[in-house]
Amino acid sequence: MKLGTISHNGVDAVVAALDDGSAVLLNETMDDAPASMIALIEGGASALQRVEQALRGRAGGGLSMDALQWRPPVPRPGKVICVALNNSANKDRIKSGPSHPAMFIKPGSSLIGHGQPIRLRADFGRVHPEPELVAVIGRGGSDIAPEHALDHVFGYTIINDLTSPTMRGEDTFHYRAIHPKAGDAGAIEYVDTWVSYPARYKCSDSFGPMGPWIATRDAIADPHDLTVRCLHQGELVTEDNTANLFYKVRDVVAFASTYMTLEPGDAIAMGTALKAAGSGAGRAVQNIDLNKLGGPVQVSISGIGTLSNPVQWR
Amino acid sequence: MKLGTISHNGVDAVVAALDDGSAVLLNETMDDAPASMIALIEGGASALQRVEQALRGRAGGGLSMDALQWRPPVPRPGKVICVALNNSANKDRIKSGPSHPAMFIKPGSSLIGHGQPIRLRADFGRVHPEPELVAVIGRGGSDIAPEHALDHVFGYTIINDLTSPTMRGEDTFHYRAIHPKAGDAGAIEYVDTWVSYPARYKCSDSFGPMGPWIATRDAIADPHDLTVRCLHQGELVTEDNTANLFYKVRDVVAFASTYMTLEPGDAIAMGTALKAAGSGAGRAVQNIDLNKLGGPVQVSISGIGTLSNPVQWR
Repeated sequence: MKLGTISHNGVDAVVAALDDGSAVLLNETMDDAPASMIALIEGGASALQRVEQALRGRAGGGLSMDALQWRPPVPRPGKVICVALNNSANKDRIKSGPSHPAMFIKPGSSLIGHGQPIRLRADFGRVHPEPELVAVIGRGGSDIAPEHALDHVFGYTIINDLTSPTMRGEDTFHYRAIHPKAGDAGAIEYVDTWVSYPARYKCSDSFGPMGPWIATRDAIADPHDLTVRCLHQGELVTEDNTANLFYKVRDVVAFASTYMTLEPGDAIAMGTALKAAGSGAGRAVQNIDLNKLGGPVQVSISGIGTLSNPVQWR
Repeated sequence: MKLGTISHNGVDAVVAALDDGSAVLLNETMDDAPASMIALIEGGASALQRVEQALRGRAGGGLSMDALQWRPPVPRPGKVICVALNNSANKDRIKSGPSHPAMFIKPGSSLIGHGQPIRLRADFGRVHPEPELVAVIGRGGSDIAPEHALDHVFGYTIINDLTSPTMRGEDTFHYRAIHPKAGDAGAIEYVDTWVSYPARYKCSDSFGPMGPWIATRDAIADPHDLTVRCLHQGELVTEDNTANLFYKVRDVVAFASTYMTLEPGDAIAMGTALKAAGSGAGRAVQNIDLNKLGGPVQVSISGIGTLSNPVQWR
């Protein structure tokens, strides 16, 4: 099953995908429809079964996707955890780094829905797309064991984790950091190093297009056998597969949950699909400066759908 | 006026401070009490006036603060924006960096209330306190002009922005980053640099003790004339003043709002008070390894209150 959120008469409402690609409003399809995606997620297996039952026999004839005002599938997740540098294609760029997933947080206010404009400003500098698989948390938890981690996934969606390398560079300090002292963790020492802060380059308004659909967990046989494509102005830029993600969904969910309690509706973005399409001589996503070239930019993941967004300047 | 949130019979409820330091539940003091701090904030000036009216003549005799189960004053802000390296005492440590506030995001799930335990684990390595002033957003907005920025502040509270320099070091990559090409912003080049990701070292569960009180804006004549103290196990470690914050509340609110839309209840942590107490020969907050030494750790800001938290291990 595929589920999304739209703004309908000014109010968020849950829609489901029909076989012909059209969308149906749950509150026009069933009694006691879940009031929101988060309510549906918190309702667990029985809430999902009720939706499935209500959709039975509805093969098509719903609303055209293009006519809808899409919101992020979970409009305001408690947190969006993003995994950095998690593609095997990054490997030759990394000289040293952690031997576990490295993560940062995007705020709910950075998210926009399918079709909504990415809003840029000249001083943002370069802004490039990062097409990514997202695991949406169903049942919350902390200290989740890897073997149970997928039981905590409600489904999968798509994020375009927009990134400004210009602002990343600007927000990096070269400084004397306070580190545990080498050989004496009881003391500190000053170490000449660098630290970067992501609130502008990853978290600005509209830097998180997400959706349109969450494919429920049962609809995705293997989250690491999905084709990820990124198209810029109709041209195929990225053609990758989630098999190339170094850390897998089950390991990232488990690892993240040992630091941050996961809650229903939390989103975990799994890291950029990087592999350039075609011979590899083509452009990588980082070559696409949306601030110079404009949109639209489109991310497709097999079994989930296609997220497309225009670019505007403000 | 000072306002806080407690868990009362398992439900979040808003309390106000009385002159004798005791607390009174709004829903036991007035009809139509705001259901939550966020509802009170969204109610604007008229909602605040109604609370003020209800408290008139109540000088004391409320609940003892120690007997209450405190929650973060806004239990689940949409985002917590934290300003990095914003104290004049940092200045000699910075070799190069941005000429504007650098920021990162803490998720709501990292926040705990006054008196609630900071929960650490041996593998977190060093964890030190960072005592900070917080501006709580009242009226939301984006592209806010500095001269109007304070109109968007509902009040001020306290955060202990716990930080693990061990995990910060572990989650730093040395890599070849994609940067705009020097002299040709239309192209990219690979630059040997460092990038760090803060989701473990800043965002782990309980890394954000906050509260107990929000002092409303009218109660704080000048947010940059407040004494900030940090005590560890009763010993004064930090004695600083918010005058030493390099970027001021009005400038940070304005700057942040040009990237991220601010919403009612959002919290902006203004950066660490760093100045060691006494002669300066004493310990700095970064010398306090809570993971080795335990708690309690206490942050006081004049006119706002005292935030104290024990340390537990898990």
